[in-house]
Amino acid sequence: MEHPAPGGLQEEERVLVSEQSWRPCPEARRRLRGCLEWVKRQLFRVGEDWYFLFFLGVLMANISFVMDLVISRLYEAHRWLYQEVGDILVLKYLSWTMYPMALAAFSTGFSQSITPHSGGSGIPELKIILTGVVLEDYLAIQNFGAKVVGLTCTLACGSTVFLGKLGPFVHLSTMAAAYLGKMRTSVTKEYENKFKQNEMLVAAQAVGVATVFGAPISGVLFSIEVMSSHFAVRDYWRGFFAATCGAFMFRLLAVFNSEQETIAAVFKSDFEIDFPFDLLETFFFMILGAICGLVGCAYLFCQRWMLAAVRENRLTAKLLATDKPIYTVLAVLLLASITFPPGLGQLMASRLTMKEYLTSLFDNRTWGLLVPNTSQVAAGAGGLWQEWWHPSATIFGTLAFFLVMKFWMLILATTLPLPAGYFMPIFIYGAAIGRLLGEAVALLFPQGLHAEGALHPILPGGYALAGAAAFSGSVTHSISTALLVCEATGHLGHVLPVVLAVLVANAITQKHQPSFYDGTIIVKKLPYLPPIRSRHVGSYQVAVEEFMERRVVALAKGDGFEEVLMALDASADAEYPVVESKESPVLVGTISRAQLVTFLQSHKHPQAPMEEKLATVGTLGDDCAIEPIMLQLSPWTSLHQAHHLFEMLKLQRIFVTRFGELVGAVTRVELRRAIEELTNPK
Amino acid sequence: MEHPAPGGLQEEERVLVSEQSWRPCPEARRRLRGCLEWVKRQLFRVGEDWYFLFFLGVLMANISFVMDLVISRLYEAHRWLYQEVGDILVLKYLSWTMYPMALAAFSTGFSQSITPHSGGSGIPELKIILTGVVLEDYLAIQNFGAKVVGLTCTLACGSTVFLGKLGPFVHLSTMAAAYLGKMRTSVTKEYENKFKQNEMLVAAQAVGVATVFGAPISGVLFSIEVMSSHFAVRDYWRGFFAATCGAFMFRLLAVFNSEQETIAAVFKSDFEIDFPFDLLETFFFMILGAICGLVGCAYLFCQRWMLAAVRENRLTAKLLATDKPIYTVLAVLLLASITFPPGLGQLMASRLTMKEYLTSLFDNRTWGLLVPNTSQVAAGAGGLWQEWWHPSATIFGTLAFFLVMKFWMLILATTLPLPAGYFMPIFIYGAAIGRLLGEAVALLFPQGLHAEGALHPILPGGYALAGAAAFSGSVTHSISTALLVCEATGHLGHVLPVVLAVLVANAITQKHQPSFYDGTIIVKKLPYLPPIRSRHVGSYQVAVEEFMERRVVALAKGDGFEEVLMALDASADAEYPVVESKESPVLVGTISRAQLVTFLQSHKHPQAPMEEKLATVGTLGDDCAIEPIMLQLSPWTSLHQAHHLFEMLKLQRIFVTRFGELVGAVTRVELRRAIEELTNPK
Repeated sequence: MEHPAPGGLQEEERVLVSEQSWRPCPEARRRLRGCLEWVKRQLFRVGEDWYFLFFLGVLMANISFVMDLVISRLYEAHRWLYQEVGDILVLKYLSWTMYPMALAAFSTGFSQSITPHSGGSGIPELKIILTGVVLEDYLAIQNFGAKVVGLTCTLACGSTVFLGKLGPFVHLSTMAAAYLGKMRTSVTKEYENKFKQNEMLVAAQAVGVATVFGAPISGVLFSIEVMSSHFAVRDYWRGFFAATCGAFMFRLLAVFNSEQETIAAVFKSDFEIDFPFDLLETFFFMILGAICGLVGCAYLFCQRWMLAAVRENRLTAKLLATDKPIYTVLAVLLLASITFPPGLGQLMASRLTMKEYLTSLFDNRTWGLLVPNTSQVAAGAGGLWQEWWHPSATIFGTLAFFLVMKFWMLILATTLPLPAGYFMPIFIYGAAIGRLLGEAVALLFPQGLHAEGALHPILPGGYALAGAAAFSGSVTHSISTALLVCEATGHLGHVLPVVLAVLVANAITQKHQPSFYDGTIIVKKLPYLPPIRSRHVGSYQVAVEEFMERRVVALAKGDGFEEVLMALDASADAEYPVVESKESPVLVGTISRAQLVTFLQSHKHPQAPMEEKLATVGTLGDDCAIEPIMLQLSPWTSLHQAHHLFEMLKLQRIFVTRFGELVGAVTRVELRRAIEELTNPK
Repeated sequence: MEHPAPGGLQEEERVLVSEQSWRPCPEARRRLRGCLEWVKRQLFRVGEDWYFLFFLGVLMANISFVMDLVISRLYEAHRWLYQEVGDILVLKYLSWTMYPMALAAFSTGFSQSITPHSGGSGIPELKIILTGVVLEDYLAIQNFGAKVVGLTCTLACGSTVFLGKLGPFVHLSTMAAAYLGKMRTSVTKEYENKFKQNEMLVAAQAVGVATVFGAPISGVLFSIEVMSSHFAVRDYWRGFFAATCGAFMFRLLAVFNSEQETIAAVFKSDFEIDFPFDLLETFFFMILGAICGLVGCAYLFCQRWMLAAVRENRLTAKLLATDKPIYTVLAVLLLASITFPPGLGQLMASRLTMKEYLTSLFDNRTWGLLVPNTSQVAAGAGGLWQEWWHPSATIFGTLAFFLVMKFWMLILATTLPLPAGYFMPIFIYGAAIGRLLGEAVALLFPQGLHAEGALHPILPGGYALAGAAAFSGSVTHSISTALLVCEATGHLGHVLPVVLAVLVANAITQKHQPSFYDGTIIVKKLPYLPPIRSRHVGSYQVAVEEFMERRVVALAKGDGFEEVLMALDASADAEYPVVESKESPVLVGTISRAQLVTFLQSHKHPQAPMEEKLATVGTLGDDCAIEPIMLQLSPWTSLHQAHHLFEMLKLQRIFVTRFGELVGAVTRVELRRAIEELTNPK
């Protein structure tokens, strides 16, 4: 910038002339500048939200990709070590068990030492946050590093520990979104808005799912189903956009890294698409759904029981309270010993990684037909399935053994206090159920089910798809796993039987067990609002006045120092209702606890010595800003409506007024109690 | 049933003994009966909702299938007629134009004579109904027959009139659900519940989409996106279940009818799945998205203008008011004359049906490469694309001519007062845009874009997929068309570029134009609540007291005959607020208009002659049941929050109270005005 000298106009003119002479084509330049201004305006008009979401998607995709890369390197190192030690069994055993033990212990110790919130999947807590409850520090950025490092180590243990990436990644993604959101508000100086924050969290969840599976559409749907009971279509659009950016970037990085020639599905399958399944097979798919539903119920029940047992048992509770890494080491030692390949591991294909498990189970060949030709087939070519083959047990034996053992091993693994996801193991488990049933059907009907016409043999891989979707769907109470399985494999031919299996499995599990995430919420005793089932028509007959809290600590407009002090002592609410006067308790508004404290500090106690220069008299109505009330219930509102309002508007507490007068308040605690009484009447 | 004779105990015993001797194994029978009882209880425990949804899905699938069958027969008849008349041009012309004219005229006349609501698509009105507005008779079962017959005739006109099936089918499905719901409540004697009704309507919409495209997942998503701004996950599950039943049944019927060997996608494609597209092609897909978005804007603008112009123009308005069939006949004559195959029709492949249009555009071959070999290729084999080939115009000419002509022809067709859907034509139009761009790209890069390695030619069919999804998505403001296109073709390989194109197209159109359905709502002047864009942070600063209606006709508890009469005269509301007294207007509750009328009938006018035996004195508070108020706003609630509440809770009117006293009311009218003032400040 040139400042004209204060000397005179001549100087100024000279500068202007020289400026003009230095830059040719003033007209063109002016136009160009106008053009750029217009582009800038247009770009700003789009709303910075979209840039924010784009950035979030790309960031998380990069993190996911780099994490995958590091994990595969760490895993390769383990495999190399295991092969290098030669044929001495003891050394083999030590190298097989020590490596994951060290990694898991480091994961536990490191993440727990930084923050205790970084363990587990994080989805149950996110679900609670989305209902409007504030869980302090859960989205703090300090967790981020702890969780990234911890998760990488957990996953590098591979299929020994048999854990996944999805839940923690969703948590990571929301942490990143919360942090970026804070940065944004500090830059734009806009006042931070709770609605917008929520929108971004929802989008971030979708990004989390999408960048793990490279599946944008089911990413959005899965995060919606699992997280919330109501949602806005505009959130869905945001999630969609962010998830697409994330998934695209994630697949793009795979191309840049020369893993793939072009963008394709993560677990690409090569099923025959002309005749994916015969109509009569639908029946078997429904049976598969029912089996998955029943196993899902058993799994959920046992998992919840185990989680509670570990917390209650004196020994484990003490270990978990003080020496988490030791608990982890002991559990991982047990898991690793069982999966030791020369031992029991050979019966459960334990040399495969998580990804190889899935790829092998989604194989489009029928293993039962391949087995007799094993000797002819070269060991190297596409031989993933051969890991499943054992001379004395056949593939049926190994699959069944895998299912039996992994059932309790997986439940044990979910008690480990390290950052880990529980979706992927469930997904693989379901695929194994499906593969077993599929192989059995293929064995029973070697010619396929079609009576006339061309021969269409049965594809056990299709059953594996359906099994994965049905079991993971039943455990998480979601239906979009049907789409997830299609997007992840790039195969749509089986979509209808898969959806049917998922629906059957869900019908069974939703009836009898809370979902995996709800179960964890119940065990962890987080604030939770149970749903009202449509069968409970009684919820229309129960009125708010029957269950509301009548003893509400309220202040009057004319209250002074002493009353405020008493009120602050009497309850620990964040907000206090203010009424007109004690005689006519018409609700006027609310006042925050912080404001009351300020009021106390700026006024003096009536009995205090006179030298302090503070106002003696002074009432709330005069000296404090009273926040107006937006919404109030009447005592005759039904339980059903109150529940609906709490769910839809993410309320924490709402006051009940009769003809304007405060008569009570309803919080989630009262609502939960009322619903529980309705469900289990005394 | 045997009634024991009243004679004595002996007779009774005899009967009992004979009963026992006649039926063996009493123990086994008792157990069996217990078992059956248990099964019955279990079945009832599931909730009759699911049976209801299952039945709805199967019913609509059957109707959809039978309708398709009848339409194809009618269309075959037309084709046969056209071929049988020989080479005489006049006869050919007459047979080409008369048949659709007659059908369209019948469709218009028949449906309009039964009910005026049966015209058009029905989706805009459903959208309004779902926001809680009661549109009388719109879901009445009388419409059903009119719409089924009318729609069949419309669709039998084929590609001449170029209309679709989706919208009316969604309407049909909701009508069926509403009727079945009424039947159910009359059987079970349960009190009809508005929430449940809404749930069923949402599920019914999903069924409508699913049974047309055989696409359960995108059916649910599309109906959600188009219809509502908020929704519950439990509705989504219901929709999913019903849509799956519907889609499954629909595809099953095709197998039973031997159209297909097994269940497969409706418009099954056979794209190469190993290398669907090159990474660099993403750029072209985004350009395609931008083009679709821009054309979508132009289309929406012109369509809205045309709809308004037809209503305002003196001639057409008169025709539409009194002689709807004549308007239809004239418009169809124009459309049919232009598509006459020996005339202009040969330049726009007008001999194809709607389905053949789509199948040909989604062809996996590159037409530009096929053209030179035309003479060699036998005319019959897979020659749908040859319809697009014209010796003097090449395929580029015909595609461009098709796009230019169909642009205004489609807009003209949307003004026809007959039952018809507008989604399918938009879908085909988009596919044509995509095919044109795809063929152009294939011409520019005959070797594909990949510099090194294997040769991967460009697949113009993939562009057609993306174009169909992007254009239909941009016109309807929805993203799930990306999934719809995948489900309808059974091909997932292109999902990422398709999603990208859809997002780009949506970004452009949502910025500049209301969606097709919102546009129709605006033109038809239906009650409509515009969305608040996130940019309008001002909506947080506007308080309810700035825009609420202050003059509310209220009654006091002590009011008698005269005041009630005056109130009924003063406004036509369905509900009147009741306050404590005129002096202290504390809101007590509401009272319905019907109750007030009853009150008037049972009380007598103070000046009335004395002989009538009715109570003279009597106040509202004593003689009427006053409904309590569930929810009230305060004057300081922000516009944003009020809008949120109206959208979430589907409110129609809400009262505003200050310290319990009634000070005003807010309806959708006030809200709309406030939002419009915010958007276009004076």
